[in-house]
Amino acid sequence: MDSKTVKQFKSFSSFTRRDFLYRAAVVGGTGLLLTTMDAWGMGIASTASAPPALSGSGKGKKVLILGAGLAGMTAAFELEKLGYKVQILEARAFAGGRCQTARKGFSLTELGGEKQTCAFDDGHYINHGPWRIPLHHQSTLHYTKLFEVPLEVMVNENDHAYVYSENAGPFAGKRVRLKEVKADMRGHVSELLAKSVKNHQLDQELSPDDQRLLLDYLQHEGALTANDLQYKGRSGRGYAVNPGAGLNPGPGTLSDPLGFKDLLASKLGNVYSAVQDFPMQNTMFQPVGGMDAIAKAFEKRVGKNIRYKSEVQTIRQNDKGVTVTYKDTGTNKVSSISADYCLCAIPLSVLRQIDTDFPDKFKKAVATVAYAPVGKIGLQMKRRFWEEDDHIYGGHIMTDVKGINQISVPSYGFQKKKGVLLGYYQYQTAAIETSALSLKERAEFALAAGQKIFPQYTENFETSFSVAWHRVQYNLGGWAEWTDKTRAAAYPTLVAGEGRILLAGEHLSYLTGWQAGAIESAWQQIAQIHERASA
Amino acid sequence: MDSKTVKQFKSFSSFTRRDFLYRAAVVGGTGLLLTTMDAWGMGIASTASAPPALSGSGKGKKVLILGAGLAGMTAAFELEKLGYKVQILEARAFAGGRCQTARKGFSLTELGGEKQTCAFDDGHYINHGPWRIPLHHQSTLHYTKLFEVPLEVMVNENDHAYVYSENAGPFAGKRVRLKEVKADMRGHVSELLAKSVKNHQLDQELSPDDQRLLLDYLQHEGALTANDLQYKGRSGRGYAVNPGAGLNPGPGTLSDPLGFKDLLASKLGNVYSAVQDFPMQNTMFQPVGGMDAIAKAFEKRVGKNIRYKSEVQTIRQNDKGVTVTYKDTGTNKVSSISADYCLCAIPLSVLRQIDTDFPDKFKKAVATVAYAPVGKIGLQMKRRFWEEDDHIYGGHIMTDVKGINQISVPSYGFQKKKGVLLGYYQYQTAAIETSALSLKERAEFALAAGQKIFPQYTENFETSFSVAWHRVQYNLGGWAEWTDKTRAAAYPTLVAGEGRILLAGEHLSYLTGWQAGAIESAWQQIAQIHERASA
Repeated sequence: MDSKTVKQFKSFSSFTRRDFLYRAAVVGGTGLLLTTMDAWGMGIASTASAPPALSGSGKGKKVLILGAGLAGMTAAFELEKLGYKVQILEARAFAGGRCQTARKGFSLTELGGEKQTCAFDDGHYINHGPWRIPLHHQSTLHYTKLFEVPLEVMVNENDHAYVYSENAGPFAGKRVRLKEVKADMRGHVSELLAKSVKNHQLDQELSPDDQRLLLDYLQHEGALTANDLQYKGRSGRGYAVNPGAGLNPGPGTLSDPLGFKDLLASKLGNVYSAVQDFPMQNTMFQPVGGMDAIAKAFEKRVGKNIRYKSEVQTIRQNDKGVTVTYKDTGTNKVSSISADYCLCAIPLSVLRQIDTDFPDKFKKAVATVAYAPVGKIGLQMKRRFWEEDDHIYGGHIMTDVKGINQISVPSYGFQKKKGVLLGYYQYQTAAIETSALSLKERAEFALAAGQKIFPQYTENFETSFSVAWHRVQYNLGGWAEWTDKTRAAAYPTLVAGEGRILLAGEHLSYLTGWQAGAIESAWQQIAQIHERASA
Repeated sequence: MDSKTVKQFKSFSSFTRRDFLYRAAVVGGTGLLLTTMDAWGMGIASTASAPPALSGSGKGKKVLILGAGLAGMTAAFELEKLGYKVQILEARAFAGGRCQTARKGFSLTELGGEKQTCAFDDGHYINHGPWRIPLHHQSTLHYTKLFEVPLEVMVNENDHAYVYSENAGPFAGKRVRLKEVKADMRGHVSELLAKSVKNHQLDQELSPDDQRLLLDYLQHEGALTANDLQYKGRSGRGYAVNPGAGLNPGPGTLSDPLGFKDLLASKLGNVYSAVQDFPMQNTMFQPVGGMDAIAKAFEKRVGKNIRYKSEVQTIRQNDKGVTVTYKDTGTNKVSSISADYCLCAIPLSVLRQIDTDFPDKFKKAVATVAYAPVGKIGLQMKRRFWEEDDHIYGGHIMTDVKGINQISVPSYGFQKKKGVLLGYYQYQTAAIETSALSLKERAEFALAAGQKIFPQYTENFETSFSVAWHRVQYNLGGWAEWTDKTRAAAYPTLVAGEGRILLAGEHLSYLTGWQAGAIESAWQQIAQIHERASA
């Protein structure tokens, strides 16, 4: 967002603050930034949490939007409020782009693949596209709030879930609860550092007072014994026999910790870190009933301006406007449509195959960005054995079983009979290899692998739904995968747009693969369009 | 549970396993236990997860149950299935005991206090009694599943929430996000230990291979720099400017870590530990719409056998049976009722004031157990400023502001306009002191304290509902507080019961203050009743 656009923000106080903070960070580093925020009584600066409040009107001007995904629909919703005439072309028969949910009757035919129709029981689904809304994504949350899309917690951190590694040395091929690894690694490490302190090996680093404070901390963090600061286990790692009523089990029986050297050799400690990664932190959300509730909420508001089954064929522009031809995929009839400006929210992976009159530099930028091969499979199980037998309610089982990466159990319908779990979440080579399999073979692959972790797997399997996003027409990939090199070479060019054509989508953000990237990119680009239209 | 009772378990295979495991733990410690479980392909042994499957019939025998809390209703439900004739006396006009939810119209008059009627808006509530169902409490979850009580996630861990301490040295009186403390303390500590390794101070402790593995771990845990293993912050602690779309904010701006010595001096690191404590771990649940959904589900099934407004006056027994007199609190008429056995699920704090013919030893045991003073207050706020301004969605703000302990924001109704938060959760002295205040003064106390943390507090306050459990008739305390000494002196006596009278409730468990304690205690005691009745 350039300073001119920023100046159009309606809320003056919030604009000046944001702008000032940005300058403070540039000039004085985060130290100055935080001091400034502190002086204002502000917490950590929020991400973009509302659309740009643009002044003036778009009345009498027409914007053609290509693609009714979240970026396109966000732009349509906001531009129409400004008075623009808006038209969206969407190649599919429904809106939402990758924001899809597979439930009974949902069908998908990948390029060169068999037709697949989801056969999950009523009430069960898999979000085979985006499936998480982080608390930091205030832009996405802006619309769920505005459109009153009910949210529920998506269990994204579950220390009671298993870690299962086939290469974990002493624990290879064994299920270990993540909490056991965390409790024991941090316990042993705390004991080790406490020993260093007691042996006066840190006398040069820390004052006697700091050493005492550090020992207090380590004792608490690592549950070290009071006298000799040793780690001998803790209730947080789980009991061998849980406490209960009466005399037996009564207080229960504590479990023994895993050995330090075994844990080191297993490398299982590298599954977690001090805090959850930024976008993955609690509280994580999902819309009640499926992620496509967001797509449908947008569609309800901008659907009247969407022309479905309209596949873009050519894009041309001149000083006066933009002309796009599109094919009706039902009738194969090609028509053309013109507008003053065009916001193209088509993934770059698809855009680069469309006939445009972009200059070579821009074409090259469009062509240069890689797209991620991504695969997911939903497996409907007769019963929720992960809840009933393993007491895992939502969350992820992390594994290095080839081609699986993680198994995720649902955060909805707790304690119901059946459930749909995510059987794999693949990227790169694994995604490419699995996508070459038939639908049946993909399910068999997921089942054979999952069976290693859950012996209840195959006997409970009922039906699957899988997607390989790189083989999905109109997407050709899960999300844009930028490198430092392509960011430098192509990103500023694409963000700037070309004449009367602006681009939007998760690919024009640092939140690639997230719905917030699409929405925030749309917010930025409509500010650009409005600026050009108002000039 | 004695071995005789255990033998009555229907499921032979699960009985023998459980029994064998218990013996394995006693004989060979948890090492043998875990080896055995491993050989059977079992994970961590579960707590009691189903009622005892008792053989035989209770037909023709009558059990009188005192108290329609969760223990009493669990016993009634299970005993009736066995053929027993069951009658419950309940002093209140409703069932559930402490399992209550305050919503519009709910009224409570504490002993010596003003009448209080909850005035929250429709759809808002506070669980002023139990409010959490841990995943480990399979007994509670047994009934939510059986009775189809819908559950949702209760956000019990939220690293994005604030820690606020008035005695935190350099951070005194400042809000700090828990994730900042975790990221920075663990980062600094990892750097310190890595330095010890590099300086060969651990050569005697660890082999060169183990040292390399430890450095790998520390680098990952603490986000240390690759070359010189220093901690310089990480995205997981939060950004100064969050990443977004376009060129600005683009990749965002990382925030600077808090200094190690400042953190040590603040003692904020003692707010968390390596893993969450056992009962507090994810996934935590709450029934949709309020905890009393559990009470109502039981009441629906056993309510026909409950005589409400029946205050127990005397308890007598002989070789043939038990006779109880009770006063109808509406008419003040005293009646008597007899049965073959009696299960008394009245809190010990109340039971010790009832006229009984218990022998002195038993009376003394009943009298010896302390009950916890506990206070809670729900504050309805005009808008969810904790969500809108602070991006805290569910979870707890931990604080040492006098008399507050924690402020908890709701895990339901995310993004709605209003919300009811928990303004304090007090024990001991704080609970006693606050309970001496008028209802209005309690709210003012909570507001003045909360205002220090959230400047939006008082301007958004609408109405409150508070409880001091030690002043609630028929409870006289939050829960039983055992010490090692009282456990030794009184617990076995109370668990054994007296003649034809058995006791049940959270107080006869090691899960005091939890609904699971009440349920599992009832399971154990009905097995005892059945054993005696079948003898």
